[in-house]
Amino acid sequence: MKLNPLHIAFALVVAIRSIGPHAVSADDPLPSWNDTDTKTSITSFVQRVTDPDSPDFVEPALRIATFDNDGTLWSEKPFYFQLAFALDRVKAMAPMHPEWKQTQPFQAVLEGDMKTVMAGGKESLLKIVATTHAGMTAAEFEALAYDWIQTAKHPKTGRLYKDMVYQPMLELLTYLRSNGFKTFIVSGGGIDFMRPWTMETYGIPPDQVVGSSIKTKYELRDGKPVILRMPDIDFIDDKEGKPIGIHSHIGRRPIFAAGNSDGDWQMLQYATMDHSPSFGLIVHHTDADREWAYDRQSAVGKLDKVLDDAPKQGWTVVDMKRDWKQIYPK
Amino acid sequence: MKLNPLHIAFALVVAIRSIGPHAVSADDPLPSWNDTDTKTSITSFVQRVTDPDSPDFVEPALRIATFDNDGTLWSEKPFYFQLAFALDRVKAMAPMHPEWKQTQPFQAVLEGDMKTVMAGGKESLLKIVATTHAGMTAAEFEALAYDWIQTAKHPKTGRLYKDMVYQPMLELLTYLRSNGFKTFIVSGGGIDFMRPWTMETYGIPPDQVVGSSIKTKYELRDGKPVILRMPDIDFIDDKEGKPIGIHSHIGRRPIFAAGNSDGDWQMLQYATMDHSPSFGLIVHHTDADREWAYDRQSAVGKLDKVLDDAPKQGWTVVDMKRDWKQIYPK
Repeated sequence: MKLNPLHIAFALVVAIRSIGPHAVSADDPLPSWNDTDTKTSITSFVQRVTDPDSPDFVEPALRIATFDNDGTLWSEKPFYFQLAFALDRVKAMAPMHPEWKQTQPFQAVLEGDMKTVMAGGKESLLKIVATTHAGMTAAEFEALAYDWIQTAKHPKTGRLYKDMVYQPMLELLTYLRSNGFKTFIVSGGGIDFMRPWTMETYGIPPDQVVGSSIKTKYELRDGKPVILRMPDIDFIDDKEGKPIGIHSHIGRRPIFAAGNSDGDWQMLQYATMDHSPSFGLIVHHTDADREWAYDRQSAVGKLDKVLDDAPKQGWTVVDMKRDWKQIYPK
Repeated sequence: MKLNPLHIAFALVVAIRSIGPHAVSADDPLPSWNDTDTKTSITSFVQRVTDPDSPDFVEPALRIATFDNDGTLWSEKPFYFQLAFALDRVKAMAPMHPEWKQTQPFQAVLEGDMKTVMAGGKESLLKIVATTHAGMTAAEFEALAYDWIQTAKHPKTGRLYKDMVYQPMLELLTYLRSNGFKTFIVSGGGIDFMRPWTMETYGIPPDQVVGSSIKTKYELRDGKPVILRMPDIDFIDDKEGKPIGIHSHIGRRPIFAAGNSDGDWQMLQYATMDHSPSFGLIVHHTDADREWAYDRQSAVGKLDKVLDDAPKQGWTVVDMKRDWKQIYPK
């Protein structure tokens, strides 16, 4: 077997996971969480569903936990990090496309004029996605996404994007897994954009990632089987798409779901309503100093209906500023 | 958590799997396989990819094994068992549909006239599927499939359909898992038809089942979240659909793939071509006494191109009559 970077990453992660920042102390499985009622509500839920003598005991096979990605496991400002990847791809591809200097939305991307890019709305973004995410094999795209995540840095924090994951959420993932949960990502982001690095970053293997996808095609090319990425949307894993994606990929209702925006509303309903015991977790971005503060009016990560519904549905709202001792890994 | 039959099955399977007929002896992990070169080729492959000192060593995270279901893990004659389920559903629903006595293909189903049903071709079958597999919630369908598999018997053998799984393949699944493989079903059959019972029968959880699907819709019904099953085909997990389904659900190429028909051709290619080390396994139905004997001319489970390709691609062909000591569990 030829070793590519992804293979090496898989090998390394086995060693890293047990000694790295994800490690869980025997005394406190969630050391980056302050000792508030939020933390207690999580640990008491996990104790109830894992104690064989509890009336709320849940068989390990049914301990399904689903996590949104953008804004729930890592930051999403000033815009989804996958868009930064797409813009970087446009820049890298530009020398092959001299016509982009006079073609929108590419011209605006190359000139760093994000206002014009965003003003083009959905149509502009779809053009950028079709150009940067399609027209190649799945293996080629995997390598591009993997290489990008190793080096690309956030313009404001100067951190690698992959180091802008939330330390408390890494601990929560590990804590749930150590209690027999199977953890899944269920994100509006591209499934194939996330898969190359979710094992290394979150300990979540590719087959436990659910996301949006474009159409693909199988063929033999010079005797080599390839999956071709086509420039057409296949599935949008957002809003009512999340329960559909969960049903399609997981086939069971989660008993634990975490999100941070109205895009997660239906997933939170699906995991918790008429489904007890279960746990809904909402990451509320309240920390303008250490991260960002936004909710009801935000263009990216709008949290409105879900915030209204939380008390009614008994969902636990994480107040990032109050509940998290630390935001990013050290 | 309310316990439904599926939950109880999940609980039982933990106990059953370690002591049941799937159990693997330390001396011989494949006791129902005769000591032929077929068996040796399997065990030597597994040894090579799991020995850290072997040049063919494969990290556990990349040990993905995919299995076709019909004809590979259980029998498929005289027709796919899922069709038997659909016909039984038509009969159960008939009292609510007096018009079916004069409407094809339902009339033929009710009269047991399979010749007329089959003569209606794809259109007839789609009508039967739409009527019996859609128009209800996912939870309702799950219960119907689960209940059916517990009791429905094969007309020729008198065995429960679920007891017409291949004992040697059960051992192979367990053997691969005990060597760090993650085992998946990749079948042309309905994903939601299989999922309710694959854990109990094969030790394969719902999220590791890939199959054909119909469209679904999410909604809240009287405050209860439901997935509705719509009468439209969403995805056919057969032929070139198999690599697509594998890419969509698993996100990695298998290093081990098992099939029994030309519907598995592309999956076998995808797992093995330009991908070493890897293993392609073909179940050749050669045993008319203990099971069925068929290949190139068969309407169900036609094995033609794959048989031609096997020697070229180095795929291992199981001669059921010669290689299997036992067909079904005792």
